[in-house]
Amino acid sequence: MDNPFFKNCGPFKINDLLKDQKLVDAEKLSDDLVHGIRDLSTANKDHLTFFHSKKYHPQATKTKASFCVTLKSLANYLPKECKPICVDNVLLVISQITSKFYPDAINDNFDNSVKKIEEINFDNKIKYGYNVLVGSNVKIGKNCLIGHNTIIEKNVNIGSNCSIGSNVIIRNTIIEDNVSILDGCVIGKKGFGFFPDKKKNLRYPHIGIVLIGENSEIGCGSTIDRGSMSNTIIGKNTFLDNQIHIAHNNKIGDNCIIAGQVGFAGSSSLGNNVMIGGQAGISGHLKIGNNVQIGGGSGVIKDIPDNSKVMGYPSKDLRQFLKNNKW
Amino acid sequence: MDNPFFKNCGPFKINDLLKDQKLVDAEKLSDDLVHGIRDLSTANKDHLTFFHSKKYHPQATKTKASFCVTLKSLANYLPKECKPICVDNVLLVISQITSKFYPDAINDNFDNSVKKIEEINFDNKIKYGYNVLVGSNVKIGKNCLIGHNTIIEKNVNIGSNCSIGSNVIIRNTIIEDNVSILDGCVIGKKGFGFFPDKKKNLRYPHIGIVLIGENSEIGCGSTIDRGSMSNTIIGKNTFLDNQIHIAHNNKIGDNCIIAGQVGFAGSSSLGNNVMIGGQAGISGHLKIGNNVQIGGGSGVIKDIPDNSKVMGYPSKDLRQFLKNNKW
Amino acid sequence: MDNPFFKNCGPFKINDLLKDQKLVDAEKLSDDLVHGIRDLSTANKDHLTFFHSKKYHPQATKTKASFCVTLKSLANYLPKECKPICVDNVLLVISQITSKFYPDAINDNFDNSVKKIEEINFDNKIKYGYNVLVGSNVKIGKNCLIGHNTIIEKNVNIGSNCSIGSNVIIRNTIIEDNVSILDGCVIGKKGFGFFPDKKKNLRYPHIGIVLIGENSEIGCGSTIDRGSMSNTIIGKNTFLDNQIHIAHNNKIGDNCIIAGQVGFAGSSSLGNNVMIGGQAGISGHLKIGNNVQIGGGSGVIKDIPDNSKVMGYPSKDLRQFLKNNKW
Repeated sequence: MDNPFFKNCGPFKINDLLKDQKLVDAEKLSDDLVHGIRDLSTANKDHLTFFHSKKYHPQATKTKASFCVTLKSLANYLPKECKPICVDNVLLVISQITSKFYPDAINDNFDNSVKKIEEINFDNKIKYGYNVLVGSNVKIGKNCLIGHNTIIEKNVNIGSNCSIGSNVIIRNTIIEDNVSILDGCVIGKKGFGFFPDKKKNLRYPHIGIVLIGENSEIGCGSTIDRGSMSNTIIGKNTFLDNQIHIAHNNKIGDNCIIAGQVGFAGSSSLGNNVMIGGQAGISGHLKIGNNVQIGGGSGVIKDIPDNSKVMGYPSKDLRQFLKNNKW
Repeated sequence: MDNPFFKNCGPFKINDLLKDQKLVDAEKLSDDLVHGIRDLSTANKDHLTFFHSKKYHPQATKTKASFCVTLKSLANYLPKECKPICVDNVLLVISQITSKFYPDAINDNFDNSVKKIEEINFDNKIKYGYNVLVGSNVKIGKNCLIGHNTIIEKNVNIGSNCSIGSNVIIRNTIIEDNVSILDGCVIGKKGFGFFPDKKKNLRYPHIGIVLIGENSEIGCGSTIDRGSMSNTIIGKNTFLDNQIHIAHNNKIGDNCIIAGQVGFAGSSSLGNNVMIGGQAGISGHLKIGNNVQIGGGSGVIKDIPDNSKVMGYPSKDLRQFLKNNKW
Repeated sequence: MDNPFFKNCGPFKINDLLKDQKLVDAEKLSDDLVHGIRDLSTANKDHLTFFHSKKYHPQATKTKASFCVTLKSLANYLPKECKPICVDNVLLVISQITSKFYPDAINDNFDNSVKKIEEINFDNKIKYGYNVLVGSNVKIGKNCLIGHNTIIEKNVNIGSNCSIGSNVIIRNTIIEDNVSILDGCVIGKKGFGFFPDKKKNLRYPHIGIVLIGENSEIGCGSTIDRGSMSNTIIGKNTFLDNQIHIAHNNKIGDNCIIAGQVGFAGSSSLGNNVMIGGQAGISGHLKIGNNVQIGGGSGVIKDIPDNSKVMGYPSKDLRQFLKNNKW
């Protein structure tokens, strides 16, 4: 899916794209137009894609993209129709090219497109507090409540019957019906992803969004960052307590219950009906199954299969944890 | 104690109460009026009570309530004057009946009763910042300071000489004299208590309040949830650092010192003169004694007697922790 | 360095200073003027200093201060030109005297000197949102962005090209060029330092500031407290994720990357190029070297030498942690 919110500034000529990045001698390249960036599976002939790890070679051999930023050692996996652009650091180059297509995806400066909500003509019955600000490209469903001092920045869709608290900031987010966002949340900002550099770190573009499913609730003071190349997702009927941090690209399932001060590093997925105790931490790039229970304070650093109960730091089978910790 | 803030919508006829809940055939029941819900010990003949665990049987045998929601297996403990109403899930039914008495105790939508503080006539010398909002049924003592953008929602009593910071939100709370609430706190919202359901979780009513004793201080960005059937209490002269989360029904003693990012799950009690290091977590339904010291990062999952020093996850005697962790 | 922001209410006569503190019979003392308080090394003959632990005796023997608050057992280390003032609790007395010199350093009541930013004439090109408030003694460099509802209280210098988010509160802070402060941060408030007392805790004065180096970023909802007698420092090009707590007097180096929900107790120092995983905690008064990597969830309670990788609670060598925790 292309991001529904960020304006794509393309198409660009492939040689211009690469010349700007000082990647290669531009004269060797064509004037072919590139309309966007997609992953190996969803790209078509209008797109540039990227291939940075051998584990994606099944997708690479079938990609329909016209161009692919990759490593020399991987170029042979690509089909003939896809021209390899060999570089030393695939993700860095993709980050730079993505920034060119979506310049708004790098920074999260405050939205100065906002107006006072009184100046905007919403058809629906919306009740709102004092000092509410709303940016461009915002839709709000019927019977929603928007608390005092809340800022709905640009690129937000809110369903019907939602209750947004006070002092909330939301951007780049789709919220389904009957969702509650409690006071002081910050939802949809760029994730904590960048390429470290000793002089000045380079921000990774975050062209994903946040999706919050129906009947869910987000507790006070929580932060949910939007995705980088994919989206951050909170499932339906999932309840988050206060002061929770959900980093970019996490996918939380339906009917999950997550207690206070839990934190997720990036890009993990959580099944349905998962319960997590307070202050637990979930490392990045993990797969947590359905019906899993994670004890309070746990540090989860490996995948957890369906129907497991774990606790500890690092988290173990719950019975083993209790056995190891008899008083 | 009945909650001083929430309006009791009763009395209701007992048969109407139960018919609405589809609990029983209403024709079998009387037209007797029920004026409120109380626990086994404090109920009198005007009240309905509840009895869901055998450990409360001493109180059950002496209750003065006219009706009691309970399990079939427990009904025999009740005195003859108290009619048992036998159900499968006591707490769920009590939750539904409580919602009928106190419909405001379910949701925490933003308070649209608030006005700008300039429009309210406070007798006392109050200094306040820009954009301060105050709801109905709010009292503020003399010489208080209220920072910018702060929202004192309905049902708040603030004593004298209190300093409330900026961007603070308070509701359903009693604050004694000389208390400091620092910037960005959210105090008095409903707790994270509900009956999980695969389609749409059911909120547990929170008819309790938050009580903060004199000379106490609450650090920046902390959240203190109000109680469900009892109150959440912070003792006198107790200092909380930044980003602390106190869930519903916790009782914190006097002269406690609690460092940054500590979290409490619900319904635990803490004695006086307790010191807790940063990022420690206290599980639910525990009893922590007086003069206890809990090391930073500890995970406390069982009761702690008076005068103990503990550390670890799960927390152990401090000396044992240090012995087990020599380098 | 004297604090550039707090007004020094001195000089005071030494006998008045001590009489106010009920320390000694004032008649025994001179009318000599004391212009300020400095530590043993930086004091000159205009200053009062303090000496509370034998480990500082090398500095004590060379101090140029005219007066020194100390213990009877340490007084002999001082040079003849420095008159000892012997007390039972050095830090308590210094705290009281510091409060007299810097009465503003005790409390953090909201700044009622602020005005709406529209009423202030900044020469530079500053873009700002709705409801921005700015206190006295604030400088803002060119091309800065200040988000909605943000409060820049008194005593703040912001460099050029900085992006301050919405709902941010800053005081007593110097921010260099190209810094981003994301939504909802509270920066520069007093630290969590005081002398416990059963009736009413006594606040330690916080006359330090917060310094944030160029090209750094502070994530949403983070809190950074100012220093007590020294400053809290965030180095250049250092990135902090969301919901981080940095207590008073910590010194973070350059090029550090610190993930979400990490917490620092007070007065630790961190070298350059340090990476810290989510939810880790760093105890007080530690020295963490350069190029150190600290795993997520770790609890660091002792110094870490340069180039180490650690994980665990308490943190250990990373290989040992993984070896001890095989599944």
